[in-house]
Amino acid sequence: MRAEIVTTGTELLLGQIDDTNATYLARQLHDLGIDLFFRSTVGDNEARIAQILEQALARADVIITTGGLGPTVDDVTRDAVARVTGRPLVLFPDLLAQIEAFFARLGPTAMTDNNRRQAYLPEGCIPIENPVGTAPAFIVEDERGTIITLPGVPREMRYLTEHAVVPYLLSRLGQREAMVTRVLRTVALGESRIDQLIADLETSSNPTVGLSAHLGQTDVRIVAKAPTLEEAESLVADFEAKIRERLGAVIYATGDVTVEAVIADLLQAQGARLAMAETVTGGQLSQRMSFYSQAFAGSLVAPDYAGLQALLGLGDVPAPGESAAVKMAEAVRDTWQVSHGLAVLGEEDEAPWVAIATAEGTVTRQFLSRGRGHRGRVWMSTQALELLRRLLLNVIEDWVG
Amino acid sequence: MRAEIVTTGTELLLGQIDDTNATYLARQLHDLGIDLFFRSTVGDNEARIAQILEQALARADVIITTGGLGPTVDDVTRDAVARVTGRPLVLFPDLLAQIEAFFARLGPTAMTDNNRRQAYLPEGCIPIENPVGTAPAFIVEDERGTIITLPGVPREMRYLTEHAVVPYLLSRLGQREAMVTRVLRTVALGESRIDQLIADLETSSNPTVGLSAHLGQTDVRIVAKAPTLEEAESLVADFEAKIRERLGAVIYATGDVTVEAVIADLLQAQGARLAMAETVTGGQLSQRMSFYSQAFAGSLVAPDYAGLQALLGLGDVPAPGESAAVKMAEAVRDTWQVSHGLAVLGEEDEAPWVAIATAEGTVTRQFLSRGRGHRGRVWMSTQALELLRRLLLNVIEDWVG
Repeated sequence: MRAEIVTTGTELLLGQIDDTNATYLARQLHDLGIDLFFRSTVGDNEARIAQILEQALARADVIITTGGLGPTVDDVTRDAVARVTGRPLVLFPDLLAQIEAFFARLGPTAMTDNNRRQAYLPEGCIPIENPVGTAPAFIVEDERGTIITLPGVPREMRYLTEHAVVPYLLSRLGQREAMVTRVLRTVALGESRIDQLIADLETSSNPTVGLSAHLGQTDVRIVAKAPTLEEAESLVADFEAKIRERLGAVIYATGDVTVEAVIADLLQAQGARLAMAETVTGGQLSQRMSFYSQAFAGSLVAPDYAGLQALLGLGDVPAPGESAAVKMAEAVRDTWQVSHGLAVLGEEDEAPWVAIATAEGTVTRQFLSRGRGHRGRVWMSTQALELLRRLLLNVIEDWVG
Repeated sequence: MRAEIVTTGTELLLGQIDDTNATYLARQLHDLGIDLFFRSTVGDNEARIAQILEQALARADVIITTGGLGPTVDDVTRDAVARVTGRPLVLFPDLLAQIEAFFARLGPTAMTDNNRRQAYLPEGCIPIENPVGTAPAFIVEDERGTIITLPGVPREMRYLTEHAVVPYLLSRLGQREAMVTRVLRTVALGESRIDQLIADLETSSNPTVGLSAHLGQTDVRIVAKAPTLEEAESLVADFEAKIRERLGAVIYATGDVTVEAVIADLLQAQGARLAMAETVTGGQLSQRMSFYSQAFAGSLVAPDYAGLQALLGLGDVPAPGESAAVKMAEAVRDTWQVSHGLAVLGEEDEAPWVAIATAEGTVTRQFLSRGRGHRGRVWMSTQALELLRRLLLNVIEDWVG
């Protein structure tokens, strides 16, 4: 099966927003194993949307569009699909009732004639109910191909894709009735090193294994398809076990979980709490940990060691260096009276030191700097968090970063 | 003139990255006043890139491509352009010399035969030297239309667009030989309120005036075209004056400048320095100010008032509320011995208080909360920074946020 994505919206052609819908849909199609060779973007213009749909129908089996389903005169995707498939727009009474019920809750005058337009869809289409918005989506199964028409609001588009489009496409794929996706989240190890360790698994076609890298983190994505959910699950589990055997503690979670969330859970489970002092990371660590108030007591942020020292009333310590980081980690631990004190220090041009002080002693590591810009800060804060995670898991000696 | 954007790269079709190049180029074309009706994305496949180029040539005068200019066999955009325009790839000796010089710096064995491929471009094209990378870009002026071929690395693509593509397009536009863009950055006032205040100016066709909103900030973009740079500059200046008259102090800078950079300059100019305490913004304020070490002494971040209080050894103050914010702002000002202490406090479900303490006294404001997620934090930190900016400018009474 070949698919094509058509995103509509003049704001895309004016460069006002990134086309994240296209990215999201491309990823979904990839996970489904459906080929995607072309993506197009077109403005809110019926004739041009129709022109692009004609082109796509000549190349693909399934076309997914986003945008242009709202109530205003700018919203012309319904009309373009009707034109291309030669089907008049007809009233779907059930949809109209849903829309009326939605607006009834907002007050007697909230609904306009424009909203009624949204209940008119191409004759013979399969309407997709939209419980998270007012724009109904729909599927037209035409002789030349299938057009799946989704709203442009990302939240609605994603909801309908997950709940209606993916199940529909899986049923269209016939035998491949079930799909399971699992994302193993790794930290600290570079993408190329992970690639080396699991290169042979990445050549598999079912499950597929793919990598995607962010600053200091790499996701390993496993996707399996099988006639039943159980079989797909078993294929994923098999690959997950193999990958875990090779990558070990580098995998910190599965799914959409941050390192800081995992650390917050570990701290809470151990009845522990964290205080921090940071210079080189400029508040990035505080920002990441402060979402977890039960695990995070507080932190100090300053441009240099002197700025931290002043507040804690520490004596003279020769900064920069390891001893300054140790002293600071111990100081924040003691001041906030918590189990774990973490410090990330380093003067300009110095490779930063991370120290973590607990009741049992203090662990230190030095890291190469990746600069003090935003990216450098995120990277460095991830390294510091990973040192803490390993300390909490008692696997600090396995560190391979 | 009609343009079309063709972005290439299999990573785009796999949904691994957002197509930010397309967004950037769309914005540039909009600023130039060049119509853009279609954007397409295609993988690293010569035949399919050629197919899309054929389509685009039938619709547009100028096509801009990104990606596929690297040294590997995956990089086939050169070949696709050669095929579509019927021009063989020929060696450009000057480019080869530049590439050789680049690699000579990296060592005697750094350059491979693949790198030599990058010096072969379609016969008769206009090469664009790439001082920020190794992939030369080029322009083919064919009978059916012009193809401008740029690398996919965003930094290189943007550099070459600004330094070569925009000037080239301006010269192609003939009379419209000069273009001036100015972005007025505003803060605190909502986009819809700004829209109200300058609605009549937004209907102008030269200069054009457009708005784009981020969290708590709105940019007003003025773009003028004229036969000479001076005339374009004068058109922009005229509109800028009108807009400044209506928006006043809401405009905090022109160009690519953050509120925190402006505040850092104001603090430095006044020989002042800032210390902060934050709960609701969770380190976001620290992160923004810590890029400016001369203006920022340090800050405390904690999930609640108690976490801040513990460190400063304050007596019992009934938190939450205005008095807690005042006490904390004064405490950080005194502890770090700086001119300005700023505190943003608020318990769950409380509208946050901002207090700024100076030698002359303490200013406070209460804000509606937008939640404690990332977006809420950014928004709230912008409000706090704006209060500080107005205090530093002595225009606090004009506050209209």
